[in-house]
Amino acid sequence: MLTLASDFGTPYPAAMKGVILSRTDAQLVDIAHDLPRQDPRAAAFWLRETIPLFPPAVHLTVVDPGVGTDRRAIAVRVGDHALVAPDNGLLRPVVRRLADDTDGDPPIAAYEIAVNDPASTTFHGRDVFAPAAAEIHERGVDRIAESGLLSPIDLDACVDLRFPTPTRDGETICGEVLVVDDFGNVITNVPGAELSGVRRATVNGVAAPVVDTFDRVDPGDRLLTVGSHGFVECDVNQGRGDEAFGLAAGDTADIGVGGAD
Amino acid sequence: MLTLASDFGTPYPAAMKGVILSRTDAQLVDIAHDLPRQDPRAAAFWLRETIPLFPPAVHLTVVDPGVGTDRRAIAVRVGDHALVAPDNGLLRPVVRRLADDTDGDPPIAAYEIAVNDPASTTFHGRDVFAPAAAEIHERGVDRIAESGLLSPIDLDACVDLRFPTPTRDGETICGEVLVVDDFGNVITNVPGAELSGVRRATVNGVAAPVVDTFDRVDPGDRLLTVGSHGFVECDVNQGRGDEAFGLAAGDTADIGVGGAD
Amino acid sequence: MLTLASDFGTPYPAAMKGVILSRTDAQLVDIAHDLPRQDPRAAAFWLRETIPLFPPAVHLTVVDPGVGTDRRAIAVRVGDHALVAPDNGLLRPVVRRLADDTDGDPPIAAYEIAVNDPASTTFHGRDVFAPAAAEIHERGVDRIAESGLLSPIDLDACVDLRFPTPTRDGETICGEVLVVDDFGNVITNVPGAELSGVRRATVNGVAAPVVDTFDRVDPGDRLLTVGSHGFVECDVNQGRGDEAFGLAAGDTADIGVGGAD
Repeated sequence: MLTLASDFGTPYPAAMKGVILSRTDAQLVDIAHDLPRQDPRAAAFWLRETIPLFPPAVHLTVVDPGVGTDRRAIAVRVGDHALVAPDNGLLRPVVRRLADDTDGDPPIAAYEIAVNDPASTTFHGRDVFAPAAAEIHERGVDRIAESGLLSPIDLDACVDLRFPTPTRDGETICGEVLVVDDFGNVITNVPGAELSGVRRATVNGVAAPVVDTFDRVDPGDRLLTVGSHGFVECDVNQGRGDEAFGLAAGDTADIGVGGAD
Repeated sequence: MLTLASDFGTPYPAAMKGVILSRTDAQLVDIAHDLPRQDPRAAAFWLRETIPLFPPAVHLTVVDPGVGTDRRAIAVRVGDHALVAPDNGLLRPVVRRLADDTDGDPPIAAYEIAVNDPASTTFHGRDVFAPAAAEIHERGVDRIAESGLLSPIDLDACVDLRFPTPTRDGETICGEVLVVDDFGNVITNVPGAELSGVRRATVNGVAAPVVDTFDRVDPGDRLLTVGSHGFVECDVNQGRGDEAFGLAAGDTADIGVGGAD
Repeated sequence: MLTLASDFGTPYPAAMKGVILSRTDAQLVDIAHDLPRQDPRAAAFWLRETIPLFPPAVHLTVVDPGVGTDRRAIAVRVGDHALVAPDNGLLRPVVRRLADDTDGDPPIAAYEIAVNDPASTTFHGRDVFAPAAAEIHERGVDRIAESGLLSPIDLDACVDLRFPTPTRDGETICGEVLVVDDFGNVITNVPGAELSGVRRATVNGVAAPVVDTFDRVDPGDRLLTVGSHGFVECDVNQGRGDEAFGLAAGDTADIGVGGAD
């Protein structure tokens, strides 16, 4: 199995699929090709939330604002999974999650992918990452180290990318918006447990009820809930939370839980 | 084979795919993940028009404005097909169509799906429906009754959803817009046969020629035609019918066929 | 393997998939279903750039503004590939590319597809092209001539469609915009080699640096580069080239390379 994720829109992913299927007989599964464009941090959130749900596979992930620069192309093995990506931090959160989810002590190893000529300077998805993912799939993840395309490197020397940890100031949890989803739901980095027992809270001063399902408020009304990823979300029933709360990815989200409930 | 249809946009369907492929080795086929959002009636139209074209399969269908409420999760077997969905009527039109299309007397049975903890309150696609679809696929549709996740229920006790039947008032067929497609074509519930022999008709008083192909009118001009689903459509050659006729899903569409032609 | 490409948006491609999978057990791969709508020339560009990357397969390609008129439905074999499409030129550029890419003298043959009743007048993707593609896939491309659906025709009698060749006027290359991609990158018909050694050029009088990667200019700034297809592209770092250069598909793109650099 080989999954694909990118911010390439359409029809560029088809070029990657053609390259892969010309080299290996794989079941292809699209994760998404409209990951947050040129935003490795937001894209890394979605990879962390989706890839660990899959059985062992090769995962081709490309959100690559630095394409054509000297940023490295890397592959990382975590147990029976292998991931291929630009070295911009995109992989680090999902690699940590995969390692945490695996019983025992899974083999983890990082490799630099050789960029062979003639690679285009603008479409390494087709010219570098897809061939590498196909090569790893064809060979088998457990034999990744034998690939002539790959040279061992230190994972700790790869670019890291960590989501911020919220801090607490009295009855305010000082958080941040990680991503806004396709529905306009605003996903923060504040763990859902912070809302345990809270019936009403504020986000940057804007009050909303804390509920467990959208329909507990009228259509068009704001709500706070613990989303499917386990974090506090700022949403609107049948509407867009990002617009109602005035929030975008990267914004501060100070959540006040001290109000009388 | 396992098909997937939802209004989840992106990248949430990937979570369902990961859950499924972790549990069963299925050929996945996406029907659509941009079904009319939170609109089970319009979505049910598309399911009825597409799912019966497939060979026997498990069909995972989620348009679920009531997620997290006490609406049931259900599975329905129709012959060699099985369908999994929230109990909001979404499945009923396609179940009727599948039963009609099947020779003889196909076995039809409905089941309630157990909602196991810890299911999120907002993403039953990942936590309830995908596991159930995978379980049915892995077991085989003919052995669906053996699944420990499922309890038999009466199909007639499930929420029903029927498309309205047009009525006739003299030379006016009083219909309704079922859905507007991605091109802006307005699909009514009026059977195409009503336009047989008619060369010009009106929709809510707006006149347009009745033609069999779009190019019979100039680009930008309105037309009426019998669409690929067999219903009267209000369209525009190289344009959007919904804008030109001022129609949206659920609107009345009174089609006058009495004009001199 | 059977690839699908269309301008059908959603959920119409699912109808084609159902028809195909009811008739043949194929690995389906979506190329794109948002090819430039009703624009066979722009769509033909994308087919030419993607399909040749695939291993031998049946390729179902439908961008069909003439659906329901008397335009023919055709199938073309090129070596171990077969392509199915309306006879509007859509296939000709990719057929030439496949023939050029194949060693030796691949068998090339064209066929007219019988349009059987009852085919809808508006959805030949479902009613004509998908069944033909499934039939060819099931039979095998090397036995395409045995299909009862197909009658041999002369490929040269099919509608052709050629991309214009740029002309040179002194230090100006008189080109044209072939397509604008999903990112807003403007892809011209001017071969990248024309920019060899050039450090700054103009497009219709608008100057921009010639660079090999986007990040050589500041975010929001214009640039010219040789894109992944080998043609000159007019782009913006982290922005839309079509807006910054005021260019759309079909526009003239006169590229001046005579400035002091």
